Amino acid sequence: MDIELSEDQEAYVNVAKNFARDVLAPGAAQWDEQEIFPRQAFTQAGSLGFCSLYASTEIGGLGLSRLDASLVFEEMARIDPSTTAFLTIHNMATWMVGDWGSENLCRTWGPALSTGEKLASYCLTEPGSGSDAASLRTTATLSQGRYILNGSKAFISGAGETDLLIVMARTGAEGARGISAFAVPADSTGITYGRKERKMGWNSQSTRAITFDQVEIPCDYLLGDEGEGFKIAMRGLDGGRINIGTCSVGAAQGAIDTARDYIQNRHQFKQPLSSFQALQFKFADMVTHTVAARQMVRLAACKLDAGSTDATTYCAMAKRFATDIGFAVCLDAQQLLGGYGYLKDYPLERLVRDTRVHQILEGTNEIMRVIIARQLLEKGGDLK
Amino acid sequence: MDIELSEDQEAYVNVAKNFARDVLAPGAAQWDEQEIFPRQAFTQAGSLGFCSLYASTEIGGLGLSRLDASLVFEEMARIDPSTTAFLTIHNMATWMVGDWGSENLCRTWGPALSTGEKLASYCLTEPGSGSDAASLRTTATLSQGRYILNGSKAFISGAGETDLLIVMARTGAEGARGISAFAVPADSTGITYGRKERKMGWNSQSTRAITFDQVEIPCDYLLGDEGEGFKIAMRGLDGGRINIGTCSVGAAQGAIDTARDYIQNRHQFKQPLSSFQALQFKFADMVTHTVAARQMVRLAACKLDAGSTDATTYCAMAKRFATDIGFAVCLDAQQLLGGYGYLKDYPLERLVRDTRVHQILEGTNEIMRVIIARQLLEKGGDLK
Amino acid sequence: MDIELSEDQEAYVNVAKNFARDVLAPGAAQWDEQEIFPRQAFTQAGSLGFCSLYASTEIGGLGLSRLDASLVFEEMARIDPSTTAFLTIHNMATWMVGDWGSENLCRTWGPALSTGEKLASYCLTEPGSGSDAASLRTTATLSQGRYILNGSKAFISGAGETDLLIVMARTGAEGARGISAFAVPADSTGITYGRKERKMGWNSQSTRAITFDQVEIPCDYLLGDEGEGFKIAMRGLDGGRINIGTCSVGAAQGAIDTARDYIQNRHQFKQPLSSFQALQFKFADMVTHTVAARQMVRLAACKLDAGSTDATTYCAMAKRFATDIGFAVCLDAQQLLGGYGYLKDYPLERLVRDTRVHQILEGTNEIMRVIIARQLLEKGGDLK
Amino acid sequence: MDIELSEDQEAYVNVAKNFARDVLAPGAAQWDEQEIFPRQAFTQAGSLGFCSLYASTEIGGLGLSRLDASLVFEEMARIDPSTTAFLTIHNMATWMVGDWGSENLCRTWGPALSTGEKLASYCLTEPGSGSDAASLRTTATLSQGRYILNGSKAFISGAGETDLLIVMARTGAEGARGISAFAVPADSTGITYGRKERKMGWNSQSTRAITFDQVEIPCDYLLGDEGEGFKIAMRGLDGGRINIGTCSVGAAQGAIDTARDYIQNRHQFKQPLSSFQALQFKFADMVTHTVAARQMVRLAACKLDAGSTDATTYCAMAKRFATDIGFAVCLDAQQLLGGYGYLKDYPLERLVRDTRVHQILEGTNEIMRVIIARQLLEKGGDLK
Repeated sequence: MDIELSEDQEAYVNVAKNFARDVLAPGAAQWDEQEIFPRQAFTQAGSLGFCSLYASTEIGGLGLSRLDASLVFEEMARIDPSTTAFLTIHNMATWMVGDWGSENLCRTWGPALSTGEKLASYCLTEPGSGSDAASLRTTATLSQGRYILNGSKAFISGAGETDLLIVMARTGAEGARGISAFAVPADSTGITYGRKERKMGWNSQSTRAITFDQVEIPCDYLLGDEGEGFKIAMRGLDGGRINIGTCSVGAAQGAIDTARDYIQNRHQFKQPLSSFQALQFKFADMVTHTVAARQMVRLAACKLDAGSTDATTYCAMAKRFATDIGFAVCLDAQQLLGGYGYLKDYPLERLVRDTRVHQILEGTNEIMRVIIARQLLEKGGDLK
Repeated sequence: MDIELSEDQEAYVNVAKNFARDVLAPGAAQWDEQEIFPRQAFTQAGSLGFCSLYASTEIGGLGLSRLDASLVFEEMARIDPSTTAFLTIHNMATWMVGDWGSENLCRTWGPALSTGEKLASYCLTEPGSGSDAASLRTTATLSQGRYILNGSKAFISGAGETDLLIVMARTGAEGARGISAFAVPADSTGITYGRKERKMGWNSQSTRAITFDQVEIPCDYLLGDEGEGFKIAMRGLDGGRINIGTCSVGAAQGAIDTARDYIQNRHQFKQPLSSFQALQFKFADMVTHTVAARQMVRLAACKLDAGSTDATTYCAMAKRFATDIGFAVCLDAQQLLGGYGYLKDYPLERLVRDTRVHQILEGTNEIMRVIIARQLLEKGGDLK
Repeated sequence: MDIELSEDQEAYVNVAKNFARDVLAPGAAQWDEQEIFPRQAFTQAGSLGFCSLYASTEIGGLGLSRLDASLVFEEMARIDPSTTAFLTIHNMATWMVGDWGSENLCRTWGPALSTGEKLASYCLTEPGSGSDAASLRTTATLSQGRYILNGSKAFISGAGETDLLIVMARTGAEGARGISAFAVPADSTGITYGRKERKMGWNSQSTRAITFDQVEIPCDYLLGDEGEGFKIAMRGLDGGRINIGTCSVGAAQGAIDTARDYIQNRHQFKQPLSSFQALQFKFADMVTHTVAARQMVRLAACKLDAGSTDATTYCAMAKRFATDIGFAVCLDAQQLLGGYGYLKDYPLERLVRDTRVHQILEGTNEIMRVIIARQLLEKGGDLK
Repeated sequence: MDIELSEDQEAYVNVAKNFARDVLAPGAAQWDEQEIFPRQAFTQAGSLGFCSLYASTEIGGLGLSRLDASLVFEEMARIDPSTTAFLTIHNMATWMVGDWGSENLCRTWGPALSTGEKLASYCLTEPGSGSDAASLRTTATLSQGRYILNGSKAFISGAGETDLLIVMARTGAEGARGISAFAVPADSTGITYGRKERKMGWNSQSTRAITFDQVEIPCDYLLGDEGEGFKIAMRGLDGGRINIGTCSVGAAQGAIDTARDYIQNRHQFKQPLSSFQALQFKFADMVTHTVAARQMVRLAACKLDAGSTDATTYCAMAKRFATDIGFAVCLDAQQLLGGYGYLKDYPLERLVRDTRVHQILEGTNEIMRVIIARQLLEKGGDLK
């Protein structure tokens, strides 16, 4: 066991830190307030390899580990968790294309996704199937050498802005085994996008519903084999949970950064706020909990990288723990700023609004507990 | 000891419930999103007596108890805590005019404030004096039969929309005893309003800084005597804390109302959400904690109405407890709605944003603990 | 609504306070350490009417309200929650005899139970039916003008020390409606007592299992009618939950009393502990939460006294909330004493051990949530 | 970064697991109940090297890392945290002798301490200096080639049973720099032991006060140089905090083990308890939090092993977090067992009582927050 980062990892972290400072920091507040999808920022991220961190090198990805990717995303989320979170979704979609796409799909879409020239959305959730993903109703029917896609998806990040959709659809019987995964060009005939959802946060990501009406998909845009969709989705979710946990850890650290500056400089009762013991204790707990959350996320990333049979459990634990801690730390930091924490002049209220949804998506934290308990109670003995 | 409401109280509650349903419910989401100060709604509230619930009958108020007022405000906050909270501020200001105003001030402003024809803001906080209110620097200097007001105030609710300002200013030496309270017409020469603050919530209330530059105030617009300002402010805060606690309890109940409907009707895994035990437990705790918060608020109101020597402590406890519970319950309710809780289509994300500031203002919850501990540790024995 | 105590209530409180100081305080630590059932203390309590506070006056009880009884028990629990808790059980059993007993039973046992000359235990739980009380298997079969009792009970407070047992047994079919309640003299032929359980706390109460082997019960020792047992048990539990919540509130207040003395007198870093802000904040929260718990208990007592249709829900909420708060406050107080809090020289570790079981018995706090949720989700609208 | 254990580490863990099963498990409950200091068990631990895990190999220690030691202690604490905790104290004292002892001291005492033939206590705390260790008043005065020790110590684990005392005493001026560390044979003339303290738990460790009255110490029983005592004590505490955090993590895991067995086998309402969702969620959180606590402890151990400049901060964070989590998990596990969790027949109430003190000693968790905040607020930037 060794907890230090390698020199390479330190280097990635520094590049990410600079990117966050130079590209995200100037735009984050505005993208939130005006609900701008910062396409330009994603392109710049792509030029650094951040659009395909763990996608296979064969399609142009960096082929890094989940741990490496987490280190990079954390630095970016420290400034802008919403924009970073979309980037993680795009990374996941790109990785899916690289790992399960046909040669044609990889050749046609891989390089552009890897550089961020093209962006991708991930379409699993449906209006009637939130937590119960396996009950999805969108269908893909093979007909004359094409799949015909019908149905609708909800809460799709980037929808309306992205170029490729990774869509889970039913090709077989009820339940998880009847589901297949497809890559669908976003401008295909028969796709309609809903109005942009008005949300509490995550405003630099457009969110829309999507309706598929007789949308034709080339046969070799199927990812993996028929019936493998749920497995692919679940693998994606393992990584997605590390990513979202990472975004919460980063946001928490960003909130700590701002709060520390504030309490060291703001005076009340003729003393800096940082001299008040109750605030010191609060601050100490914020940092302690953020360190714990970070360790949980990195532990899960290591487990996933190592192919541990318990990886799914660790990913669920990391997601649950890190997103709860992340939100709580942002709230505490906001409180330390008093009235100023409630104003949009400071980043804290944005961090609070953005991290709130992390407890809800990629499987709600309630679903995480279902997953953890099932694993722990069905099998005997200790976690590996 | 008797915990039942009187018939009169039940009647007020019903009027408030109808007002909330008919006036607040249709507008709340829009006022939040478009940052509209709903002047018309306040006028309608005034026609029911809700602009001067506990102001003296001599200026046209209803002269009710704090407990009565709390019952009314709670029903309104169930739908719109932001708008209700402004109404409580106006009520406090009106009560100050009625209880400490000169005959001339009462005659000139009392009736219009009582009916809501005119609205009032309360100006205590300054940019450099948040929690440490007694260190305020705005000055009022007596000169040729007028007070001349100079200085600035921050975070003033309603500023720019209201007609009268209740302003705390220094007429004497440093510290609490040098402070006096004034009524200042909002359109007086020398008053400048800052830009509208951009906030996380409380968007139906405009918030602005105010600058006073050689503003002249008639001598009989002094409230009480010179040097009584801090005492008046503190009495105001006792009631203000009950009010803000009330707004949190109301919001929590509103969140519970929405969440109950949702979990009883939304199905996942082929069952209504309300059939899942973990959600049932969460729901049970939400209601239990809201009942406890309500009791704390009503206890404090009774103590204030009875003139208890411990009233300030009870008000601080009620404010701390009810605003923490209120926010937590809104968050829990939001979680029960999953992704829908994050959308502006449902009221929950608004309730979360609005109740967040209750933990910060009227004295942060940290200041509440300072007050409570000071009282409990300086004096011996039990609370009365 | 009125939150003040009447003169009579103040008087009861004072008598209870003196009793606690004079009788309980000198013995509590020893009774705990040596596992002594303080029969003499119960007799002294009886001489003050505390063995039959809300039992009917017809059998010699005081016929007070549940609220009155709660006020008395709280003062006693402030010193010794374990001994007080047994007294509440005896009060409940005595009330059952008075309200549902036959004329003969009331005449034979009522006066002696009311004065504390005789003591009673309450026998509901069985080894295999903890939370699921309605599944109990002890049977009472009518035969030749007598009921014949067979089965076993577990976790019976006072068993082996008391004179009368109130026993729930099955006289009919499965489920709640087949259960009847009986008074059974503790020395009846066929009753065997198990070894004294070794427990974490509640050591001034012996706890034993009881086995009934062909125990004969006179017909008129049936309480109420056949099949009414579960109803009687549930009514008993409503009050029992107020009582146990009361014991937690009292213990919390006792813990606060000790902690306040300690932090005001113990110096570290050349200052009294009470001058450290983080400890002040902790102390403020302890008191605030205890006040909230007390209000919840009294609210429930008022609802039960008033015969509210929601009384069961309020009792469950009060029990859950007050026992969680009570234990947490005792832990916090223990922490304020540092190493001394861990020693038996101070009462805090005893209060921690004693209040721990309050979260478990009279229905675990998990069962409370089941009850609360069922009531709230099955019926519409607001609590009354 | 790598989170897997090495083969050697896995091997140590297995030896510790077997030791816990074979030696600790049969005795733990009895040692607690009868307050037995299990000397024999320590000898057996010594035969496996567990009495000098990280002591230098020069005195016969294994010279392992803190991380290695933590792995071993965790397995033992899973069964008996009290006995394990004493073993960690002995290990610390032995390490101090090996690292700072004179050649004579190392030769005379090193081997016997390393094998557990002789045991050592650690004497820092005084009756008047709990959290403020640097204010200690015990003095050691150099006189005729000997140090003369006078003063008293409190809360000394093992006192009265151990053979060597590591004592912090003042040889110079006030404050931390005037303190030196000594090894003092426990049977030296002038040492008096107080009565055995009666405690909530940790009963397999005797705890006594010690009085030193003109106790002579050979000059070369000074550890390090004069004035280095506080530095040695603080280094000891860094490791001590990892150890105590480890004991909490182990206890939590032990509580989880028992609770899992129970809920999988106990039926209520005709289902195993493990089928109830609210209990599943509780269980999932228990495990998640224990994993997080374990990671924090191991992170701190790695930081200490690596000589990180932030090691003290990480150790304080680990101690605070792991001991809070450990206690909370034991409480939750106890709750899952319902009434049985309150009985001494199951280990849970013992685990609760034993882990409670971990939040108090080795610096209370309040002092941990002081340390963390001071480090974080005095220096800029991120933790390394």
